[in-house]
Amino acid sequence: MITITLDAMGGDHAPAVTVHGAVWAARDFGVTVQLVGQSPIIEAELAKHKTDGLHLPIVPASQVIEMAEHPSSAVKNKKDSSMVVGVNQVKTGESQAFVTMGNSGGALAAALFGLGRIKGIKRPALGAVFPADTPAGYTLLIDAGANTDVKAEYLLQFALMGHHYVQRVTKIPQPRIGLLSTGEEEDKGNALVQEATPLLKQSGLNFIGNVEGKDIPAGLADVVVTDGFTGNVYLKGAEGVASMMMTLLKREVKARPLAMLGMVLARGALNALKKRLDYREFGGAVLLGVNGVTIIGHGRSDEYAIRNAIRVAKETVEQNVIGAIEAGLTSCLFLATN
Amino acid sequence: MITITLDAMGGDHAPAVTVHGAVWAARDFGVTVQLVGQSPIIEAELAKHKTDGLHLPIVPASQVIEMAEHPSSAVKNKKDSSMVVGVNQVKTGESQAFVTMGNSGGALAAALFGLGRIKGIKRPALGAVFPADTPAGYTLLIDAGANTDVKAEYLLQFALMGHHYVQRVTKIPQPRIGLLSTGEEEDKGNALVQEATPLLKQSGLNFIGNVEGKDIPAGLADVVVTDGFTGNVYLKGAEGVASMMMTLLKREVKARPLAMLGMVLARGALNALKKRLDYREFGGAVLLGVNGVTIIGHGRSDEYAIRNAIRVAKETVEQNVIGAIEAGLTSCLFLATN
Repeated sequence: MITITLDAMGGDHAPAVTVHGAVWAARDFGVTVQLVGQSPIIEAELAKHKTDGLHLPIVPASQVIEMAEHPSSAVKNKKDSSMVVGVNQVKTGESQAFVTMGNSGGALAAALFGLGRIKGIKRPALGAVFPADTPAGYTLLIDAGANTDVKAEYLLQFALMGHHYVQRVTKIPQPRIGLLSTGEEEDKGNALVQEATPLLKQSGLNFIGNVEGKDIPAGLADVVVTDGFTGNVYLKGAEGVASMMMTLLKREVKARPLAMLGMVLARGALNALKKRLDYREFGGAVLLGVNGVTIIGHGRSDEYAIRNAIRVAKETVEQNVIGAIEAGLTSCLFLATN
Repeated sequence: MITITLDAMGGDHAPAVTVHGAVWAARDFGVTVQLVGQSPIIEAELAKHKTDGLHLPIVPASQVIEMAEHPSSAVKNKKDSSMVVGVNQVKTGESQAFVTMGNSGGALAAALFGLGRIKGIKRPALGAVFPADTPAGYTLLIDAGANTDVKAEYLLQFALMGHHYVQRVTKIPQPRIGLLSTGEEEDKGNALVQEATPLLKQSGLNFIGNVEGKDIPAGLADVVVTDGFTGNVYLKGAEGVASMMMTLLKREVKARPLAMLGMVLARGALNALKKRLDYREFGGAVLLGVNGVTIIGHGRSDEYAIRNAIRVAKETVEQNVIGAIEAGLTSCLFLATN
């Protein structure tokens, strides 16, 4: 049985939603979910649920890294925080994956310090799933925010890691790798893109060249490679646009009684659309390049997002994505030594 | 009477839509619209419209810069192209603004070579209006794609130019200037953002600090400053997300007869939403920092977008945005000499 460690104290609505999500995931996916944090309050939350036959052990940790704390100093100073203790469970082999909805910078630091990098990987990166018109229903955007300043050789490694993740998890034999840029043509983009292009071309990956911002939702690539600054701005922008559209639509509908009736009739279609775009379906972003499966979710996650983040962790473990990245680096020696 | 020069040959659907848009704008805004391009085909298009009492002179230009041509070499080699001749009309004072829907890179090069930079400006930048929940109904995103690699001092100048444009055109006394980044906190962002922050703080502008991708549609700033790579990726991403949402909604609605009826009832609200998000309402992006008003629109523009691009050109002339930028540079000497 796969064991997943959940930071029970992480996120805006912890521990109520973390414990709820853990119970849900343990039931639906048949995994053991270790709940890391302050035992009395986790026990009190667990008591609210039916947990007969489920494996939900508590791993005590007295401290909590708050959302607003400075990431690396918090990780250094709070050795008994749920985040540091949780990562340690993976390091010592007590579990196979770590999931947190807490301080994202803290989670990056805790995973990097605690688990270390896969041999040959220069910079771990966050892979975020983005709803798109692809066979898998999404595109993996990597880096979604772990590295704001990067070199071309890092982008090459992001591509390799994204390739193995998508290949393993979605079973697409040769995922299409796109490089995010300002135009399709090879001479478009900034200096970083220009430098990364020849590296990607000789990588042996299924590199399809530059893709533009509009091509991501359209599903032109299965993996979109970019620096963590652009990736983060892009993801949050998409979220903002989707949310603005819903707000504006509601405002226009409210002003029109017939439209209000129309929206009631169209509710099923609107809900289906919302579900397609709902970040909660994917649960969280996967931190690729560290020596252990790590999933980092939205601070505002609810129990459904947490359930699904645990599902993503389980799949990443089952498909041995880390082993695939290690093997990929070995077979393409230039990737590691470039 | 204000005279605007329109590249009649520029864009995917020229000259039919360019001439149509020019006729529409001349009627609605009382401006003279010079039509630059191949006289016989422009005349043939003009003959399809009622133009009594309108001022629509033709300025002959035998060549056309195609959408796929390499921008700077096309501008150098095609001296009698509608783009080069059109820019020259502004340079010689025959008109007060140039509007084109043609090859964007070509338009940038033609304006930069033909008009030169405003004294003290290091890099002209594209200001694109983005639908947002602000008093003006939009945020100006600058740079939207003219400069893919920038320095912090350029970002400072983009902020100054954006400030004067929004202040003059929307009459907001102190436009809120945001710096696009990966988090609100001052330590978030890449090296460029870190370097630009102190410059913006001491600029005397109404600098509100970092804004995230989601804050742009939410209207947290009136001007959002970023490099042209990030700005372009962001804009095209927003376009892609909006278009994906409409596509997915249609697909879900089609599968449900009741929802189809609902959408008919809600049509007014949906159309109002579409209008709010429609790039055609704004007509085009304004190239700030060159010595002459230049508006660059989407290649796929229709006559309505072209009409509105001419309106934006007229407003930019009337409000003397260029004079305001010149005066702003003089009063903040460090901006020009930094």
